[in-house]
Amino acid sequence: MDGIILTPLKIIPTPKGEVMHALKQSETSFVGFGEAYFSNVLQGEIKGWKKHTRMTLNLIVPVGEIRFVIFSEKENDFFEVNLGTKNYQRLTISPDLWVAFQGIGKGLNLLLNVASLEHDPQEAENKELREIRFEW
Amino acid sequence: MDGIILTPLKIIPTPKGEVMHALKQSETSFVGFGEAYFSNVLQGEIKGWKKHTRMTLNLIVPVGEIRFVIFSEKENDFFEVNLGTKNYQRLTISPDLWVAFQGIGKGLNLLLNVASLEHDPQEAENKELREIRFEW
Repeated sequence: MDGIILTPLKIIPTPKGEVMHALKQSETSFVGFGEAYFSNVLQGEIKGWKKHTRMTLNLIVPVGEIRFVIFSEKENDFFEVNLGTKNYQRLTISPDLWVAFQGIGKGLNLLLNVASLEHDPQEAENKELREIRFEW
Repeated sequence: MDGIILTPLKIIPTPKGEVMHALKQSETSFVGFGEAYFSNVLQGEIKGWKKHTRMTLNLIVPVGEIRFVIFSEKENDFFEVNLGTKNYQRLTISPDLWVAFQGIGKGLNLLLNVASLEHDPQEAENKELREIRFEW
């Protein structure tokens, strides 16, 4: 799907606890720093749909497991991936794509978004879950 | 201590899982984006000492609890704070301060560093734990 980049990330084990990569300024996924924040999503719960008109998202899941579903209106197509410590990749999402995500793990399912813009409700659109039909 | 900023951060509860602030580009703690990475520190283990000569660190603990100890050679003084979900604050550390941190929680003690520079071993100095004496 156009506007999506999946980048495998390193988890570096050390005797005192691992180091986990997220995002470097020199990587092509990086288009600017606006804000970093976390979002936890409880098991079975789904946050979405949301479409950003200007923000690029860089999503990393350092704890638990989250299912991401992206819908492209232009391509009329879905993209789906589960991310977490078992599949530790960064998901970069360009503007103009619809995004929803679901908690899969029993405990904490923690998402870090390194976003290219600060949170601004004016630059995002929301739809009810049922407005974009997907077999969750 | 000069070169240290502690900033209380919001945890916003929602029925599907909380949102936790980390860092915005418009905040005074932000001096540039180089890299974001995670570091886990096991209970009782101590990572340090490390001093960065150019990097500013922005440290956030979204899971567990971590004890941070900062040593200023210039002031010959220590600064100590425990951060985590129970005391959810961002710790901004300017260059030229010695930093060490210890895992306090039983499970995951997860640190996010939003660093002003990419990792570069040339710009950091390391000392053995015993080289800067502190009552851990």
